Amino acid sequence: MIGQDIHNFASKLWPLNRSLTGEGLRETLYQISKHLPDLNIKSVKSGTKVFDWIVPKEWSVNEAYIIDPNGKKICDFSVNNLHLVGYSIPFVGSVSLNKLKEHLYTLPDQPNAIPYVTSYYKERWGFCLTHDQFKILKDGLYKVVVDTSLFDGELNYGELLIKGKSDKEIFLSTYICHPSMANNELSGPTVVTFIAKWLQEIGETDYSYRIIFIPETIGSITYLSHNYKDMKKKVFAGFNVTCVGDDRAYSYVPSSNGHTISDLIAKHVLKWTDPNFIEYSWLDRGSDERQYCAPGIDLPIASILRTKYSVYPEYHTSLDNLEDVVTPQGLNGGYWAIRKAIEAIERNKKYKVSILGEPQMSKRGLYSTLSIKKNNEEDRLMMNFISLCNGKNSLLEISDRLNVPIWNLYDIVEKLEKISIVVKEG
Amino acid sequence: MIGQDIHNFASKLWPLNRSLTGEGLRETLYQISKHLPDLNIKSVKSGTKVFDWIVPKEWSVNEAYIIDPNGKKICDFSVNNLHLVGYSIPFVGSVSLNKLKEHLYTLPDQPNAIPYVTSYYKERWGFCLTHDQFKILKDGLYKVVVDTSLFDGELNYGELLIKGKSDKEIFLSTYICHPSMANNELSGPTVVTFIAKWLQEIGETDYSYRIIFIPETIGSITYLSHNYKDMKKKVFAGFNVTCVGDDRAYSYVPSSNGHTISDLIAKHVLKWTDPNFIEYSWLDRGSDERQYCAPGIDLPIASILRTKYSVYPEYHTSLDNLEDVVTPQGLNGGYWAIRKAIEAIERNKKYKVSILGEPQMSKRGLYSTLSIKKNNEEDRLMMNFISLCNGKNSLLEISDRLNVPIWNLYDIVEKLEKISIVVKEG
Amino acid sequence: MIGQDIHNFASKLWPLNRSLTGEGLRETLYQISKHLPDLNIKSVKSGTKVFDWIVPKEWSVNEAYIIDPNGKKICDFSVNNLHLVGYSIPFVGSVSLNKLKEHLYTLPDQPNAIPYVTSYYKERWGFCLTHDQFKILKDGLYKVVVDTSLFDGELNYGELLIKGKSDKEIFLSTYICHPSMANNELSGPTVVTFIAKWLQEIGETDYSYRIIFIPETIGSITYLSHNYKDMKKKVFAGFNVTCVGDDRAYSYVPSSNGHTISDLIAKHVLKWTDPNFIEYSWLDRGSDERQYCAPGIDLPIASILRTKYSVYPEYHTSLDNLEDVVTPQGLNGGYWAIRKAIEAIERNKKYKVSILGEPQMSKRGLYSTLSIKKNNEEDRLMMNFISLCNGKNSLLEISDRLNVPIWNLYDIVEKLEKISIVVKEG
Repeated sequence: MIGQDIHNFASKLWPLNRSLTGEGLRETLYQISKHLPDLNIKSVKSGTKVFDWIVPKEWSVNEAYIIDPNGKKICDFSVNNLHLVGYSIPFVGSVSLNKLKEHLYTLPDQPNAIPYVTSYYKERWGFCLTHDQFKILKDGLYKVVVDTSLFDGELNYGELLIKGKSDKEIFLSTYICHPSMANNELSGPTVVTFIAKWLQEIGETDYSYRIIFIPETIGSITYLSHNYKDMKKKVFAGFNVTCVGDDRAYSYVPSSNGHTISDLIAKHVLKWTDPNFIEYSWLDRGSDERQYCAPGIDLPIASILRTKYSVYPEYHTSLDNLEDVVTPQGLNGGYWAIRKAIEAIERNKKYKVSILGEPQMSKRGLYSTLSIKKNNEEDRLMMNFISLCNGKNSLLEISDRLNVPIWNLYDIVEKLEKISIVVKEG
Repeated sequence: MIGQDIHNFASKLWPLNRSLTGEGLRETLYQISKHLPDLNIKSVKSGTKVFDWIVPKEWSVNEAYIIDPNGKKICDFSVNNLHLVGYSIPFVGSVSLNKLKEHLYTLPDQPNAIPYVTSYYKERWGFCLTHDQFKILKDGLYKVVVDTSLFDGELNYGELLIKGKSDKEIFLSTYICHPSMANNELSGPTVVTFIAKWLQEIGETDYSYRIIFIPETIGSITYLSHNYKDMKKKVFAGFNVTCVGDDRAYSYVPSSNGHTISDLIAKHVLKWTDPNFIEYSWLDRGSDERQYCAPGIDLPIASILRTKYSVYPEYHTSLDNLEDVVTPQGLNGGYWAIRKAIEAIERNKKYKVSILGEPQMSKRGLYSTLSIKKNNEEDRLMMNFISLCNGKNSLLEISDRLNVPIWNLYDIVEKLEKISIVVKEG
Repeated sequence: MIGQDIHNFASKLWPLNRSLTGEGLRETLYQISKHLPDLNIKSVKSGTKVFDWIVPKEWSVNEAYIIDPNGKKICDFSVNNLHLVGYSIPFVGSVSLNKLKEHLYTLPDQPNAIPYVTSYYKERWGFCLTHDQFKILKDGLYKVVVDTSLFDGELNYGELLIKGKSDKEIFLSTYICHPSMANNELSGPTVVTFIAKWLQEIGETDYSYRIIFIPETIGSITYLSHNYKDMKKKVFAGFNVTCVGDDRAYSYVPSSNGHTISDLIAKHVLKWTDPNFIEYSWLDRGSDERQYCAPGIDLPIASILRTKYSVYPEYHTSLDNLEDVVTPQGLNGGYWAIRKAIEAIERNKKYKVSILGEPQMSKRGLYSTLSIKKNNEEDRLMMNFISLCNGKNSLLEISDRLNVPIWNLYDIVEKLEKISIVVKEG
């Protein structure tokens, strides 16, 4: 089960301190490139204007912790990188508990979870801790050490281009900016890494692939600001890949348009993978499709997910881990859903029957020579398929009309193409 | 509450003997013009051909009553103008009860109601009375006095044109031809009078307004026969206003087309005013939309109503009054539904976001600088709105997609227009 | 009741040994031509290539039976022509029970039914019998006589062309190749015979009619291979007529397109004939619509049926008879559904009201001159009809919008056309 390999890879990436920028993000890209040697690691300087945004300073953490009045070290970044608010500015000093509390973040409703908090675009420092720990803090002086630095550095991302027969591209995007979180982070880049490996293994595909590993939001804005004109010409389908690692649900978030081939394929694959899959609306979006589908960009990007960000209790907390939430089985399901969607897009051609009237199948050994009361189910599916091959219906449309998964038609198509009863159109 | 002012005005109009033509109708127009000094009172001569119809003679009532065998005056027009069949021709004479009964109209199912009956296009005379009164009529000779006259006079109506920035017009029509009836008559012209006052108070609107006060059917046919070519060029939305005075329901009657902007706006406003509003079909129509939407006329006119004509028990009887049926609260609801519809049409523009990718809202102080688990609802609505501002969706379409009343977006639009994040399209 | 006449005619055709070719088929055509003297009986030589198929040899049966070990004659073709597998090749010889069983066909789930089995495109011989009879066969030698011949002859079909005012054609197809079966065979050609008689009786129709009586599948392929180019130009509607003889259900099988005028009319007629009619999908098809709607042929042919082939237990067995399954009442219903569909297509014109605004109906004596609380239902239907006569809606679309059977409008149309209030468009 490939899900186990993906899970192992995720465990390797787990301890790295990912953020919008910095060493942890670069190390993550380096680990991915061990699987994908063609991965191109790019950098963009802090301060670069990208659409309405500015590439932020690079953030580096040396150490961060608090010493409580008893001299005990708490909220230690080296124990759990979620303890430090992302992009905290440096601070060293002693503060009263009351003063300290202005810098502490907890989740009273989930008292055993450390929340994930960031402050990318306003300078502040802060610590996150469980509410259970927070509640027992005693009055007194606390020594705070936030040994971080924010400096003009670079923002990094990885890009992999796989050339197919056609210049038309399928686009995959996933993000690598969250520290220690499993479903809402590591499931994405690890599944995409294994999807990319598979695409490179199968050799020449009909379409080309553009696959990027980026920090969320600022990364997609940066990437688009450099590439959107080219992408608008080439990208005809694609998915933002996130939250594909738990085994509790299958979900779909549409593109803004809602009717692109990515949407149709995603819904088809999910329907036949799990009839109870959850169909969200564009209003439930929350990841980089916000940029890919923004007015004027309008790329056909949908999302295929397991349990969607924001809706599960462990989301954006220390509970979103590789033991209880993300599992090999969950990643396996996520991997196959994405892969089946890509296969379906590759296969989704139009076919035309080359013969007027029904072909005489029995003379070709493809139909019973004896007419009795009941037809064979497979014969019937083949004849139904032929009856819809008018050169106008796509394979996806035909499979929807036949109420079968598109992959049930792959063998039939191959058999009929081989004996030239159907031919591919344009 | 403006509903009280409207109710007061309706009480003033109540005693006037309105009909297709005549003094009561002219006096009604005169009372309206006290509120709307720009109202233009028009007249069309009896006998004028208007489409397939002829403007009827003018009808005037001096007195009308019956003296029963005991010498008691009954069915006295001066007590209740519904007692006389509309357009009754003159008659004076003594008739037996049996003969008289051929001229009497009652409602056996509503024994305490005087029905409203007219005979515009065939010469006859008749009286209406409660079935309770009818049942106790004794045998004997009845003296009948119908002192009316039908003569070549004129048909009158009022027209108010309010100039906006654009020549494109919103059309409002209401009728003033029913004597002493409240929901199915006075609610219409009184609400429209106060809508017109509001339009004149707010000063320059984007669109122009054409507002008419007419006798039903013959009035709209007459008005169209003189104006339909001009109206087909200019009128892009509008409502026939009737039955907007009781507080029992909100209702909608579509245009013939069913998908005009008037229909879409009416349904949107009503849905967010009363989720249980009643959606009728074109087949349930019964007022001047019959003319405005007739083939070849095809104006985009729908109806926003409280309880619709024909479906409530008091309809076309003396029970449709200003005490039990039409109330200040009911008129208030009718007024605001029409007003919100007009505001929505004025505001229903298309907007385009001026920035590629999501705007950076936090630097403008329009979004939290701290990323925590839950988003603010209002921030989310604003970002959702921006995500749909592609210059093609109208504000109405966006509000439907966001599942909020269009008026919830007015402030957001203004805020974003002010900082040029969205701009009005064409 | 015309159903009785149709049933009588079916009884006459019952004993003939129909197959794809041969004497029984020709005799059936001859019997039909007694009702339809203009029927043109055509022949196509065995071996002729028709699209992907070859016209088969002609099949003739002299006698066929088995003598059991006790000397008793069983499976005698002269007793029931279903006993012999269709297109059995000649064989005379003695065989053991075990050997014989390789050539016997039964239905274990319907032990008292003789199945209907054919082997048109592979040479073999066989007998069909009830499972009850099969179970009591004793060991021993069986003498088998299959005195048949397969020879270069001809395939026959009947074609009737009825000229209307327009060259545009309505096409009816029915099949005549099954021996002794009632719903799934004789109901079709007998109902079509009486439909054709009616069409000839009413004299000139607006449209022309092309009506064919053919062996199923090979007959339609043969007919199309000679006529499809002409048919694609002329045929704008039509039905494959089969299974129109029992009284258990009304059913509809769509064309491949699903939205042709034939489909719309079929669904309309069936909805108003039986609100519980069964709507099948294209995937449930199984008769000559397979050819008429094949990609590249694409004729607008749907099916109106009583109980559909394949779904009733007696289908393709000796139980599908003229006593228990097909009845005069059932045939009557089938006949009228087809006839009403044809009438509806003939009547389905577009009308335009010749007057702007509502016509003044009371001056024409077509509307009450007294306005009281309730309208007359018929007046209302007429005014509703007029309100939709914009020259763009077809009569079918109007009747659907008015939620009445199209035939409820025929009188209204005639009345209004006569006084020129509506005029036929284009």
